[in-house]
Amino acid sequence: MNLTRFEKGLKKLSEVDGNAGENVIAALNDIAPDLGKYIVEFAFGDIYCRENLNLQEREMITLSSLMTLGGCETQLEVHINGALNVGITPKKIIEIFIQCIPYTGFPRVLNAVGVAKRVFQLRKAG
Amino acid sequence: MNLTRFEKGLKKLSEVDGNAGENVIAALNDIAPDLGKYIVEFAFGDIYCRENLNLQEREMITLSSLMTLGGCETQLEVHINGALNVGITPKKIIEIFIQCIPYTGFPRVLNAVGVAKRVFQLRKAG
Amino acid sequence: MNLTRFEKGLKKLSEVDGNAGENVIAALNDIAPDLGKYIVEFAFGDIYCRENLNLQEREMITLSSLMTLGGCETQLEVHINGALNVGITPKKIIEIFIQCIPYTGFPRVLNAVGVAKRVFQLRKAG
Amino acid sequence: MNLTRFEKGLKKLSEVDGNAGENVIAALNDIAPDLGKYIVEFAFGDIYCRENLNLQEREMITLSSLMTLGGCETQLEVHINGALNVGITPKKIIEIFIQCIPYTGFPRVLNAVGVAKRVFQLRKAG
Amino acid sequence: MNLTRFEKGLKKLSEVDGNAGENVIAALNDIAPDLGKYIVEFAFGDIYCRENLNLQEREMITLSSLMTLGGCETQLEVHINGALNVGITPKKIIEIFIQCIPYTGFPRVLNAVGVAKRVFQLRKAG
Amino acid sequence: MNLTRFEKGLKKLSEVDGNAGENVIAALNDIAPDLGKYIVEFAFGDIYCRENLNLQEREMITLSSLMTLGGCETQLEVHINGALNVGITPKKIIEIFIQCIPYTGFPRVLNAVGVAKRVFQLRKAG
Repeated sequence: MNLTRFEKGLKKLSEVDGNAGENVIAALNDIAPDLGKYIVEFAFGDIYCRENLNLQEREMITLSSLMTLGGCETQLEVHINGALNVGITPKKIIEIFIQCIPYTGFPRVLNAVGVAKRVFQLRKAG
Repeated sequence: MNLTRFEKGLKKLSEVDGNAGENVIAALNDIAPDLGKYIVEFAFGDIYCRENLNLQEREMITLSSLMTLGGCETQLEVHINGALNVGITPKKIIEIFIQCIPYTGFPRVLNAVGVAKRVFQLRKAG
Repeated sequence: MNLTRFEKGLKKLSEVDGNAGENVIAALNDIAPDLGKYIVEFAFGDIYCRENLNLQEREMITLSSLMTLGGCETQLEVHINGALNVGITPKKIIEIFIQCIPYTGFPRVLNAVGVAKRVFQLRKAG
Repeated sequence: MNLTRFEKGLKKLSEVDGNAGENVIAALNDIAPDLGKYIVEFAFGDIYCRENLNLQEREMITLSSLMTLGGCETQLEVHINGALNVGITPKKIIEIFIQCIPYTGFPRVLNAVGVAKRVFQLRKAG
Repeated sequence: MNLTRFEKGLKKLSEVDGNAGENVIAALNDIAPDLGKYIVEFAFGDIYCRENLNLQEREMITLSSLMTLGGCETQLEVHINGALNVGITPKKIIEIFIQCIPYTGFPRVLNAVGVAKRVFQLRKAG
Repeated sequence: MNLTRFEKGLKKLSEVDGNAGENVIAALNDIAPDLGKYIVEFAFGDIYCRENLNLQEREMITLSSLMTLGGCETQLEVHINGALNVGITPKKIIEIFIQCIPYTGFPRVLNAVGVAKRVFQLRKAG
């Protein structure tokens, strides 16, 4: 069966982000539906479905990039959940952020660890 | 035997970056020797020697962070070499940059791939 | 009649941002009045009053720049209102953000679209 | 006739960037061919072919975003040429950069104007 | 008496940031204790204890850097308090931000001045 | 005698940057003369002429901001010269960059120290 890029992307998005990812797309429906479509098709259908890196490696790279960018707390929250969903441990997530200190300095790392703390607590509570 | 942070860092730096890393430190000797010392002690002695991530994972994270920062072509060159030194394949290095497209856009990725192209050619030539 | 840079700027600021712009300046009065003065004189009196681009084009450029910078949600809110005030449609504002995806990646665009969604709702409600 | 995303993108890329764009893609062929494919398909086939903004407006937005990002001198060079190709005058290109001063400060604008100066001279010489 | 890097850093941290700094470290204890340790040892024990710049100059530099980075409102709050603690006047803190306008543009400065306003009010109220 | 903003700025620019500053302005004359005018009038006539910080403090802040921004090597070169011109020692310039490590990470600092090394050598040679 030949899946479209959108179908492939939606499947991958569910695999990585579960409901959180679908909520991001749904929240875009009335304001910028094409933005949601591109995230599904391009980010998840094209990029996340590629070979040469496994899903855990892709999430590690994504977390490093989002943390370094700064101002992406909402997206970090989604992808910290995604990292946990694909089997990266909380300890390893914190370690990813610590590895970035020499390249980004402490403030970006403090912000990312703050988001991680909230996510870990919510999942424990939930 | 108890290695100092500097000794531990120097050993790790050689393991990762070979001569290129030592050249960066040497070039700082007459202008900012303490900067070189901190890179060895803190970045390599403290951070790179930690557990929870292996050396290949640390280089993947470092490449993602440097590429996202932008304006770090010199440091990217050192760490693309470092990534190859610890056994990451050229194909996987390119894949790391491609995974970042949705978070950084194309220009940062084009710059990083340009540096990688130069590094790969130099190592083949050398 | 020869208007001062401040008078020219204040007039332009009202034309673009209406009350929102004046509120930004007023909020600075007790803490950093000169900052407000420079925004009026330089940003609006000097730059916004120049020729070669019309007001709609200037707001399009401003939105692109603010979105790309990141961490400027407050200023984006003011200038999304400004863009609407000078006649740019909501559909076109979203399109400006979408055009930036290849250069900034998705996270900055998601943040900007989130601000736009809030602004559009507030104006509909108001 | 139904063009593929790649065919649509290649046509648009030629329309905007002429040979310069094709050279960027060609230079990627031996190192990261998929990166070139995504630029053609996604940036040009999906985004640049959308409605709601004309080609001149899209180039204005692209120049604003690239200038604000910083460290994108190579991409600025391609898109300053692109802007000229779609009929934006040199005077208006400089004006776009000047409009960004209040949001990015002078250094980014100085760098962008430096690239523009080189591009304008090369085209006059050529 | 030979203080360890951690002891030296903790002393300097208290001198600069008072309770606020210790709260940042304490908040990291259950999630990323080593991150707190590195901030104390490296940022405060190594860097802040160096010669050639006095404490007021170090805080001026830190405020300039944090403001320019963007997205560091939490860290700005700690260091605006730190600047006041080491004797920099509120007027001079605002002036530091104003000096950065030509290099960062207005939005980053507006955000920093907004944080300063809140800090000054809290200390007056407290 | 009442100096215009431009005259005040030009005087201050010469005081800080000597010929290097005037060269930046001259290089803009044929491509973007107003950009040069704004740098003189606003950055130097308005901001650099303010009270509450002395010239050495203003250059310290400027160096911190330019280093943190990244991609501003040309402007760093001008202002490292400016810092030396107003009496900041080479040792103190390096110290300013080192103070920023915890906030920007090592790559930006390495780039800035590289520029400083070149400037110091050129002035010794000259």
